[in-house]
Amino acid sequence: MERYMDAAFREIMRLRVNFNNMMKPKIGAHGLEEADFDAAKLGAANERMAQKRETMKWRELPYNQDEIVADILETAKGVRKEFDDFVVLGIGGSALGPIAVQQALNHLHYNDLPKAKRGGGPRLFVEDNVDPERMEALFDVIDIGRTCFNVITKSGGTSETMAQLLIICDALKKRGHTPEKHIIATTDEKKGNLIIIAKELGLKTFFVPDGVGGRFSELCPVGLLAAAVCGVDIKEMLAGAAYMDEISHEGDIWENPAHLAGAMMVLMMERGKNISVMMPYADSLKYMSDWYAQLWAESLGKRYDLNGNEVFVGQTPVKALGVTDQHSQVQLYAEGPFDKVTTFLKVGEYRTKVDIPDGFADIKDVSFLSGHTMNELIQAEERATEYALLKAGRPSWTITLPEVNAFTIGQLLYFFEVMTAFAGELMGINAFDQPGVEEGKNATYALLGKPGFEIKKQELDSAPANETRYVL
Amino acid sequence: MERYMDAAFREIMRLRVNFNNMMKPKIGAHGLEEADFDAAKLGAANERMAQKRETMKWRELPYNQDEIVADILETAKGVRKEFDDFVVLGIGGSALGPIAVQQALNHLHYNDLPKAKRGGGPRLFVEDNVDPERMEALFDVIDIGRTCFNVITKSGGTSETMAQLLIICDALKKRGHTPEKHIIATTDEKKGNLIIIAKELGLKTFFVPDGVGGRFSELCPVGLLAAAVCGVDIKEMLAGAAYMDEISHEGDIWENPAHLAGAMMVLMMERGKNISVMMPYADSLKYMSDWYAQLWAESLGKRYDLNGNEVFVGQTPVKALGVTDQHSQVQLYAEGPFDKVTTFLKVGEYRTKVDIPDGFADIKDVSFLSGHTMNELIQAEERATEYALLKAGRPSWTITLPEVNAFTIGQLLYFFEVMTAFAGELMGINAFDQPGVEEGKNATYALLGKPGFEIKKQELDSAPANETRYVL
Repeated sequence: MERYMDAAFREIMRLRVNFNNMMKPKIGAHGLEEADFDAAKLGAANERMAQKRETMKWRELPYNQDEIVADILETAKGVRKEFDDFVVLGIGGSALGPIAVQQALNHLHYNDLPKAKRGGGPRLFVEDNVDPERMEALFDVIDIGRTCFNVITKSGGTSETMAQLLIICDALKKRGHTPEKHIIATTDEKKGNLIIIAKELGLKTFFVPDGVGGRFSELCPVGLLAAAVCGVDIKEMLAGAAYMDEISHEGDIWENPAHLAGAMMVLMMERGKNISVMMPYADSLKYMSDWYAQLWAESLGKRYDLNGNEVFVGQTPVKALGVTDQHSQVQLYAEGPFDKVTTFLKVGEYRTKVDIPDGFADIKDVSFLSGHTMNELIQAEERATEYALLKAGRPSWTITLPEVNAFTIGQLLYFFEVMTAFAGELMGINAFDQPGVEEGKNATYALLGKPGFEIKKQELDSAPANETRYVL
Repeated sequence: MERYMDAAFREIMRLRVNFNNMMKPKIGAHGLEEADFDAAKLGAANERMAQKRETMKWRELPYNQDEIVADILETAKGVRKEFDDFVVLGIGGSALGPIAVQQALNHLHYNDLPKAKRGGGPRLFVEDNVDPERMEALFDVIDIGRTCFNVITKSGGTSETMAQLLIICDALKKRGHTPEKHIIATTDEKKGNLIIIAKELGLKTFFVPDGVGGRFSELCPVGLLAAAVCGVDIKEMLAGAAYMDEISHEGDIWENPAHLAGAMMVLMMERGKNISVMMPYADSLKYMSDWYAQLWAESLGKRYDLNGNEVFVGQTPVKALGVTDQHSQVQLYAEGPFDKVTTFLKVGEYRTKVDIPDGFADIKDVSFLSGHTMNELIQAEERATEYALLKAGRPSWTITLPEVNAFTIGQLLYFFEVMTAFAGELMGINAFDQPGVEEGKNATYALLGKPGFEIKKQELDSAPANETRYVL
């Protein structure tokens, strides 16, 4: 039996979410009271979540992928055997999940280890930009003949990813390699260009299911393949997500951590807290903040509500890292405007223990550290920062991962997805589209001379060029 | 003659700052008008900047370090010869500058290159956290006998850094190495514990000058040593800073880019824009956003003004990366609340050119990219995003680096420092202290049982433990 099937393991590994420091009794004027929670509104949102569950296909990913997971594991096995490097070509949701999970569940210097110490897996590079210097730098450190590329775009039309694909195909051909041996495509099964190209080239393919948008795609092949290739137990991760789904089914908001988190954040937004700080106290969770930033920003940052009213809503995610950013951001968090809610990510047990040895016994400001562990130090600092924000009257809440492992990471990903969807329901907006990026996309097409964008090009050219006023 | 002494080179490499998209004629209601600029107030702030120049010792760093630079270069030469790895132990300002400059001026996969391709320099690791997993991971990839450690703390009392030092000293001794051969200390010349320890151990030392706070220290030995060790031309970097100092001397705000930037940001803060997004369009400039985030947040996030009035001011820095975060954040920036100012960092000429080759000629949505370069793609996307924000009525401004090199990076660092100091003057706050971190520091001391913090410990313990209410 896998450990994640054991009820005791599941209970021990359950995320704990503590909202005390969001409440008035703790933090005073900027806190919430139970009376602020509108039962009718919350109940209605909860019902809509249940009704819409069928359309939120990402909610079923923990349950309906047995065959796909088997295929991913088989494919990953082959990749691990045949290649030294695995390169994800993708951007946004196709990149942020793979990066976050790799950082959380593998060695913090994974790419710097010899292959044997990496458990036999390839190095992982996630290429989520089109900076020419970065592309060239990648070619300087990989041997393309020993590299597997996973090109990911749901729509099949992402310019950045397609440009990378053109470059990789060309480089493979020039060196006498065939694309079908080196490229795996992850895309929509029916729509878009990548599926056409994949068929033309005879590529191995995985599919992004209908109804699973980029930022909700980590638990489908988009995220699972890279994770499996690098040795992550993806079944356990999915089991963690399923466990969180159980927990966040509850209709009573006071028993449903993901819904309660969404509700509290929306109440805070309504009270002018337009910034959401995510502050993990663990290097392993550092890039969870990046993944969350996309999820929260793109889902809730909207001009119109579902009735077509202009609302200009959204809360801006800010990435911080404990303890590092105590020395960079906490001055502002403690003394600046009352415009933030901070979410701490805590770790119960780190995966190692490092002692702080004796030394400089005569210098008391240093020697008080001796005899403690780094574990105690980082945990004391987390508690101290929580306390300092509390004393400054600033709202915060904490999520504790008993350990960082595939089961707790699965829970965490699913938790934020449900929290985001529920917040969207409460705000009355569509959490699953992103109309605001069209203008920029079209302007890029126009500037690059894509057919059909001639009028946009004229519009851009009509803006006065070479301005000198206000240019210094 | 060094190229940075050549007037033509300097003029070509001068940063260009474009404020047009901050102004009403461009973006409408959320823009500024010239009438918003209070000449008397700006003139007074400018005068105070001149008067206080003597106390702002960081302003002189481009000029008064000839001997120190010679020492740094000599030391760096020895480090490059004798060691494979160079590890910075530091946090906050002691880490963010070194990381930003390394990313900007060295190969984007510097640590992954063989030593010869790194120009003979060691790998660089900047350890700015006390996560035990990270410390252990570091030991997995370095050979401590072939590693030089640079321990940096101005105060000499930073708990995180001192804990790391205890661990490194112990590890060196256990493996039969002597600290004085492997550790370089950068700290205050007279105050604090690190200078005492350094003398006790006979360490090579560099000093953080009086009046140079952590976040203003990149251009002193804090930043210069790591840069020199990794082959950066630190003289050119300082020359760039001096050049920006010349440019930002100007009394007339409309001729002084750093002052104008500070003034515009303060006006925007007064108009409710409490978020400052920094969005470089270059992987090389990615960590400039982190360095800026500390500078801007800690300097301006203040509870009291200089007259002791409670003001709770500050603007929250948000790190973004173009084009990557177009697929993560721009939806929110274009459609969310009108609470942001975006600063774009643009690059004139990237240090390489990557062609997008032909392919899939029958698929027009892909083949329009062929014949362009990645350079054109990233630059088109930058222009498109600027345009999209403009059309959405969102304020932004751009800084163009003609190239990313030591001279332009020196300018950029100095530009932001002056801009921050000037903004602090306009806001009437002390931009150079950080009283808001004391509460957290003291709570950490108390939790770890440091003598003298017994009362704080009682205070912490009196908070109810094991709460169950609002814990899910």
